[in-house]
Amino acid sequence: MRMEDTICALSTPQGMGGIAVIRISGTDTFPILKSVFKPRSTRHQLENAQPYSLLFGEILDKDIVVDEVMVGIFKNPNSYTGEDVAEISCHGSVYIQEQILKVLLNNGCRLADPGEYTMRAYIAGKMDLSQAEAVADLIESESKAAHQVAIQQMRGGFSEEIKQLREELIQFASLIELELDFGEEDVEFADRTELLKLLSKIKTIVTRLLDSFETGRVIKNGVPVAIVGAPNAGKSTLLNALLNEEKALVTDIPGTTRDAIEDEINIEGIKYRFIDTAGIRETKDLVESLGIKKTFEKIDQSGIVLYLFNAEHLVSNPELIKNEIQILRNQIGQKKLVLVANKIDLISKDQADRITIDEALIKISALTKTGVDELISQLTSYVNLNALHSNQTIVTNARHAAELNMSLQDLIKVEEGMAAGISSDFIAMDIRQVLKHLGNIIGVVDVDQDILGTIFGKFCIGK
Amino acid sequence: MRMEDTICALSTPQGMGGIAVIRISGTDTFPILKSVFKPRSTRHQLENAQPYSLLFGEILDKDIVVDEVMVGIFKNPNSYTGEDVAEISCHGSVYIQEQILKVLLNNGCRLADPGEYTMRAYIAGKMDLSQAEAVADLIESESKAAHQVAIQQMRGGFSEEIKQLREELIQFASLIELELDFGEEDVEFADRTELLKLLSKIKTIVTRLLDSFETGRVIKNGVPVAIVGAPNAGKSTLLNALLNEEKALVTDIPGTTRDAIEDEINIEGIKYRFIDTAGIRETKDLVESLGIKKTFEKIDQSGIVLYLFNAEHLVSNPELIKNEIQILRNQIGQKKLVLVANKIDLISKDQADRITIDEALIKISALTKTGVDELISQLTSYVNLNALHSNQTIVTNARHAAELNMSLQDLIKVEEGMAAGISSDFIAMDIRQVLKHLGNIIGVVDVDQDILGTIFGKFCIGK
Repeated sequence: MRMEDTICALSTPQGMGGIAVIRISGTDTFPILKSVFKPRSTRHQLENAQPYSLLFGEILDKDIVVDEVMVGIFKNPNSYTGEDVAEISCHGSVYIQEQILKVLLNNGCRLADPGEYTMRAYIAGKMDLSQAEAVADLIESESKAAHQVAIQQMRGGFSEEIKQLREELIQFASLIELELDFGEEDVEFADRTELLKLLSKIKTIVTRLLDSFETGRVIKNGVPVAIVGAPNAGKSTLLNALLNEEKALVTDIPGTTRDAIEDEINIEGIKYRFIDTAGIRETKDLVESLGIKKTFEKIDQSGIVLYLFNAEHLVSNPELIKNEIQILRNQIGQKKLVLVANKIDLISKDQADRITIDEALIKISALTKTGVDELISQLTSYVNLNALHSNQTIVTNARHAAELNMSLQDLIKVEEGMAAGISSDFIAMDIRQVLKHLGNIIGVVDVDQDILGTIFGKFCIGK
Repeated sequence: MRMEDTICALSTPQGMGGIAVIRISGTDTFPILKSVFKPRSTRHQLENAQPYSLLFGEILDKDIVVDEVMVGIFKNPNSYTGEDVAEISCHGSVYIQEQILKVLLNNGCRLADPGEYTMRAYIAGKMDLSQAEAVADLIESESKAAHQVAIQQMRGGFSEEIKQLREELIQFASLIELELDFGEEDVEFADRTELLKLLSKIKTIVTRLLDSFETGRVIKNGVPVAIVGAPNAGKSTLLNALLNEEKALVTDIPGTTRDAIEDEINIEGIKYRFIDTAGIRETKDLVESLGIKKTFEKIDQSGIVLYLFNAEHLVSNPELIKNEIQILRNQIGQKKLVLVANKIDLISKDQADRITIDEALIKISALTKTGVDELISQLTSYVNLNALHSNQTIVTNARHAAELNMSLQDLIKVEEGMAAGISSDFIAMDIRQVLKHLGNIIGVVDVDQDILGTIFGKFCIGK
């Protein structure tokens, strides 16, 4: 970490646009800015600039005008990084973006590493580590639920919870450590009953947080749904029907259109990733059996398995369908299985009413969109979002889950130690471990440089 | 044009980034902002906001926090559009960009049309039409020369020149029209000798501007260079050698990397577009002769033709090479021809010194990069950039060139009419035509709605 440098980077997305923003942060922000910025008038002079003001003028490369720009002024400590910060709004030509960065580099800036602005904000105490991580999650959020969880975490919801737990535990730890100072005298400042109560309470909370990680993972990465079905079962028609459903729900705003990922569909704020697979028909053919192996691999990666078949086949050859379902059921273990009979528009209403396979069968026509709503409810009912709707903290970050898990193990160790009557100094040590793991989440203790590198290295440049 | 609406759009490039900027402009900017913005503290209240200040707070969708944002405040008439403007800096998640736009649309904004901010700036008199067009050129500029010309034009260089010519001419036009009011009395307020002098001066300037369009086109669109050569002549090695030359010249700044277009190379601030063609060997084979036809079509679209051949062939079979050069020469007319013998590393130095074809032959090895510098000088010497280096105005816009051309025709008409002694009212009419065409360039006269639509329709959304 080279905090003494003044850094610069493009903070807006790469490419051409109406405007682009280049951010400078560090001790020399204003001296460097002064050497490249020519104010339009005295009103826009850097010397008189108030914090949170905008200056209009030109960026000069020696005597060449690179662009007419607007510069936002933020003064230490009231800025994103806590340092002096300037945000240059320029015309969004790639050439101009490059030229302005080049001028800044020539005048003493260094190009920022990915996430370095946020890392500086963390080091300056503007946010804790879990909040900093939430900034990256927020930028990457693609669904309502992911956005909601990230913004809550960025605004300190999770941190507050962890901080409180730690504070209560720190009190006990200090009392126990105080006892150690009076080692000879056999005093007991820390009330053991109260401590056990607290440990139990913390265990409950940590367990709940760990449980929420199941939902958190779904929120962050989406629900992988493997679609198993023969090539003519109507998989792509079904995906289109689901996509249309999604499009009908969201306003499509031109100018922000993201690249549509054909098999990712947002349903009620959760991303479902549909994984196409080949069928599973039992066969002696080598090529086909390789296909089945691949299907099984994809099923392994999924959370829900959707078995799609032609309703006509259930009429003409029910045993075949039932056989395939049996093979699937043997394969998927605890995963949820959704059975969907497609193309009910091709059989009579009477037939459609009668077909059954002794299972909760969903009858649809992807073509006419009959039954698609029911399928959607079925899918969403399989995703446990109680934690989301109860407004409780949801852990979405694997690093946090790992630390929580380690603190849980240490909590159990403390309890067991106390039950076994081990001496206070060991108990104090184990409590310190719990505190360390909880502290790692929010970064209040000395966090390993490697961890910081991993966290901030995942950021985009300019944030 | 629906100027009474308040418009919003994403102004930064599409996609994910550290931050994104959404711009609002129009009469209701601040009322709409007030309904969605919750200031962090009283210091950041919209009511007390000074022009050119930044407010920190949250964008709310009813009671849901969409994002923590910074908002730049610009008050009518001191803004880009001349209207009340707010620029919302949010986290660069695509989801957040969409949500903020959605909230703004729900609260009374309309999504801006492409270029609508700049069109409003033009209509408010913040810039004239040629300056507005320069904004689009500036955003699209990819080379030093294109950037330099666009920024000069945006800053009013060209407009000033046209305005002065018009003003001088308007004086004469008014005097002549005054004469018409005294029709019976045969007075002559406008000095005919002075008028002829002025017409001649304007003709000279307009002609110079029209001439500059040759350079302007090159600056804006690059120089198309057709590379003619057999498949094994080393075309792609040559392109790589030229590309490396370019890369050595520019600092590569991560975070702004544009998609490399393999056959576009920037040399001394000018873009050269290399067009690959098949060879031109004379043949009776139908397929091959179709190939030659295509080569000739590509030559037609180019400004420079680069004939690349294997130096070994000039040693072994000079007549073949000379024959091909003759075919080319017959085909290309006035275009520049560059003759390049490649692979001189494969023949002895002695042979290399001796090979000749009675032409300015450039001997290179694209592989070892021998002679590539000389080739580059040859290419650049064929591009007339005098106008660029003399710091004179350069016309880059086909619309401007067309208007200049029409005004030139009308200037000639005025001169001819005066020589033929036609009556003053006809002269006045022709002068009005000159004024109209010059005026169309900067948009001081009533510009056709269709023209405005065409000009601003080419902009990106958000500018």
